Amino acid sequence: MEKIRADSFILVYRDRRRKWLVRPSETPKLHTHLGILDCASLVGKDFGVRVNTTMNDELMILKPTLEDIVMKFSRKTQVIYPKDIGMIIIKCGIHSGSRVFEAGTGSGAATAALAYSVAPEGHVYSYDINEEFQAGAKKNLERFGLSEHVTLKTKDAKLGVDERELDAALLDMGDPWELVKPVKEAMAPSAMLAGICPTMNQAERLVQTLHDEGFVATETLELIARNIEARPGMTRPSMFMVAHTAYLIFGRKMG
Amino acid sequence: MEKIRADSFILVYRDRRRKWLVRPSETPKLHTHLGILDCASLVGKDFGVRVNTTMNDELMILKPTLEDIVMKFSRKTQVIYPKDIGMIIIKCGIHSGSRVFEAGTGSGAATAALAYSVAPEGHVYSYDINEEFQAGAKKNLERFGLSEHVTLKTKDAKLGVDERELDAALLDMGDPWELVKPVKEAMAPSAMLAGICPTMNQAERLVQTLHDEGFVATETLELIARNIEARPGMTRPSMFMVAHTAYLIFGRKMG
Amino acid sequence: MEKIRADSFILVYRDRRRKWLVRPSETPKLHTHLGILDCASLVGKDFGVRVNTTMNDELMILKPTLEDIVMKFSRKTQVIYPKDIGMIIIKCGIHSGSRVFEAGTGSGAATAALAYSVAPEGHVYSYDINEEFQAGAKKNLERFGLSEHVTLKTKDAKLGVDERELDAALLDMGDPWELVKPVKEAMAPSAMLAGICPTMNQAERLVQTLHDEGFVATETLELIARNIEARPGMTRPSMFMVAHTAYLIFGRKMG
Amino acid sequence: MEKIRADSFILVYRDRRRKWLVRPSETPKLHTHLGILDCASLVGKDFGVRVNTTMNDELMILKPTLEDIVMKFSRKTQVIYPKDIGMIIIKCGIHSGSRVFEAGTGSGAATAALAYSVAPEGHVYSYDINEEFQAGAKKNLERFGLSEHVTLKTKDAKLGVDERELDAALLDMGDPWELVKPVKEAMAPSAMLAGICPTMNQAERLVQTLHDEGFVATETLELIARNIEARPGMTRPSMFMVAHTAYLIFGRKMG
Repeated sequence: MEKIRADSFILVYRDRRRKWLVRPSETPKLHTHLGILDCASLVGKDFGVRVNTTMNDELMILKPTLEDIVMKFSRKTQVIYPKDIGMIIIKCGIHSGSRVFEAGTGSGAATAALAYSVAPEGHVYSYDINEEFQAGAKKNLERFGLSEHVTLKTKDAKLGVDERELDAALLDMGDPWELVKPVKEAMAPSAMLAGICPTMNQAERLVQTLHDEGFVATETLELIARNIEARPGMTRPSMFMVAHTAYLIFGRKMG
Repeated sequence: MEKIRADSFILVYRDRRRKWLVRPSETPKLHTHLGILDCASLVGKDFGVRVNTTMNDELMILKPTLEDIVMKFSRKTQVIYPKDIGMIIIKCGIHSGSRVFEAGTGSGAATAALAYSVAPEGHVYSYDINEEFQAGAKKNLERFGLSEHVTLKTKDAKLGVDERELDAALLDMGDPWELVKPVKEAMAPSAMLAGICPTMNQAERLVQTLHDEGFVATETLELIARNIEARPGMTRPSMFMVAHTAYLIFGRKMG
Repeated sequence: MEKIRADSFILVYRDRRRKWLVRPSETPKLHTHLGILDCASLVGKDFGVRVNTTMNDELMILKPTLEDIVMKFSRKTQVIYPKDIGMIIIKCGIHSGSRVFEAGTGSGAATAALAYSVAPEGHVYSYDINEEFQAGAKKNLERFGLSEHVTLKTKDAKLGVDERELDAALLDMGDPWELVKPVKEAMAPSAMLAGICPTMNQAERLVQTLHDEGFVATETLELIARNIEARPGMTRPSMFMVAHTAYLIFGRKMG
Repeated sequence: MEKIRADSFILVYRDRRRKWLVRPSETPKLHTHLGILDCASLVGKDFGVRVNTTMNDELMILKPTLEDIVMKFSRKTQVIYPKDIGMIIIKCGIHSGSRVFEAGTGSGAATAALAYSVAPEGHVYSYDINEEFQAGAKKNLERFGLSEHVTLKTKDAKLGVDERELDAALLDMGDPWELVKPVKEAMAPSAMLAGICPTMNQAERLVQTLHDEGFVATETLELIARNIEARPGMTRPSMFMVAHTAYLIFGRKMG
């Protein structure tokens, strides 16, 4: 059974809004408004335990999931939501061994999810012209042990993509239509291109460009995640929700 | 570059409704209402080519994705939709190396998606009391080369689960609350349990049972996939859609 | 208590898909695949009775609602859905006494709903350049006793609207932005304009034109009607649904 | 053209979040964080004008719609949303002359919308056992000139409804199933009953009771209102929204 180590990431969980992602080595004492948690004392214990703060408030010690990690990435850039990256991974058939292209890297959140999915045998090539973003993404990927599966390039993919015969491509840019041509060159025949577009206008233009470049089986969809409050005799959808993240566009390259 | 072999699966694609998943070795000539396609002649060619039928109708030759394969599994049982299995894979953090429990196997569609995600290093343990379903699933998994990553058991998981320290568990049964206790025993501390429930009443009862059994961070949600018709100057959501598949329930085991 | 007359409209109802809107005077015998119903014999009876066909199948005799009537209007043109017209009526504050402009008339379905809402003291002015549509709408409105509350004009509203000081305006055209200027002239200060646009592009352009013409408090929304199958212990959203009808755009005229 | 009077309600509008519903006679000076508005000076002017505050900030003077009024009713109780009341009015065929039952009155928001729709010839009978709610509703209805179309009864409808041959009935209670029997007695044959239920469980139980009491053509649905940000070249659904208000249940009484 996996024990907590000093350098393990642990998710200290109270409820959906109060949770902390820490490492005992970095945060021996976690100060919260619910009291102080002695993280150092967790080393050698199992995940899944309940512990008390100095104020005698109970917290749960969980092993962070991919979602817990990815949602903590810097939010200076657009976030990728689990629903969206899950759909992309399934529709592109991304799995261990896949070689995947990404533009742009942003905070590295989607990069991390892709890296996690292609490991240990595959690889992610992620381009971004923004040096600051790439530095942040590099740090995040290293911190969570995912950097060996990723090559980050501070480079404008519009000017060309170095790789060839890639299994899938993810475009998360404001003007993804500008990248279709160079990215197509880098993709294996029949491979899937996925685009993430917040606006209808972007989706429309990306699909049009995909058609112009001979892509087939194009599809545009939107995933709406609706939270449900499941309580005995009082079950109902939550009153508020994230109503829109982005449209997902898919298309397959012809040879 | 990967070439089509006699035993390769190929997706013969015309549009979203007219597509065929075949192997040249099994279907040397594919008879469609658009004419006959000489599949045998495709051997040695690349994926991503356009070919003509005897009636001179153009078809696209694609390499099938996980979705193309899974959606072709026998539909005697409830289908798993890409949006749902993608979300489950992300939220449970399933990736190469994960050891995952599933009940019930059904057509094996979700089993295949899980196997695909845990390969090459992980494993799926899938229980179903229905012998006929398991035989069908076995055939499907073998046919698509995924059976080495799966152990199928014709067994009632309510009576106990043989495995221990599993990384995730997926319950796709009519009465998933009956399985929470035995499945909990089989899960590693902090691991995620996911349930798929078509009705609100099932979701409500499963969540209640999870709470009773000490699971934390429970969450119930529904993913609504909305297709968009992205056409220049005429972009709009599709008029009809699959409005509901199932509620997804998540919860994490405490030690 | 209201009795069925020979010229009453009656809704013969079996289930959501099998229902007939008839008049005993026009259809003394209603032939259905469930047998023949003697409608003439219903005269003098109450609504809300159960009757048998010649094949001994039970049918319900209901008094048609506005929805039953409007949904039976000719469907050569775009249908207005109850959810959409209900929202428009509330947001525009249409009620007895309101004077309302409409372009275009189409089948007259929305016209009928507006007429029903403004009666007995208000009036609807409905323009359409298509003579055939207007003839059909006229027939429908007369048939259901609503024509006295409507003035139909076979006229292009782009060239000017004759009325002044109207309380609300409904634009149900392919190019509603072309009408904003002339319709604005016809509206009372502070009155609400409502547009019905199937595509995002139309909605975008209409809103832009409203802003250009000084309209304020603009709002664009979409109503999604989700049917629920409410059954003891098995409640869930319906599997299929009408996923999109139109965007609704609102804006208020400034003086 | 209608002029602003001292006792007119005016909507002082800046944007969707900053708006005030006032009367010059009651609020000669409106103090806002954008400065002071001299409402008294508006008397005799038209609606639809732009005015400046003492801080030289521009505000719009609009004639309030039904929605503007209803959304300002006290919010101690559940609010009725325009989408929901609009659908109810259409599906029940409520219009001038309709005689409508309502339980419970709550803040009187739905009562006001119903009164507005049945005026001048119809009437609303609204029951509530809560004296405080009824007093508040009475005040609101009087304030907005709608009280002559409404009879409020501080009474438990479960114990019986005094009226007969009503055209429609609206149940907005926590336990609407308890009222089906007495309300049925008060309805005309073939009339529509509408229920508003926040939870799935309530909807399920109400539909079951309607069936038990012989109601036909039952329907359960949910209206989801999705706001769209329509901006040139950047059109997209709003990021956040009210995800759920209530399920709407309909059924028609048989004789």
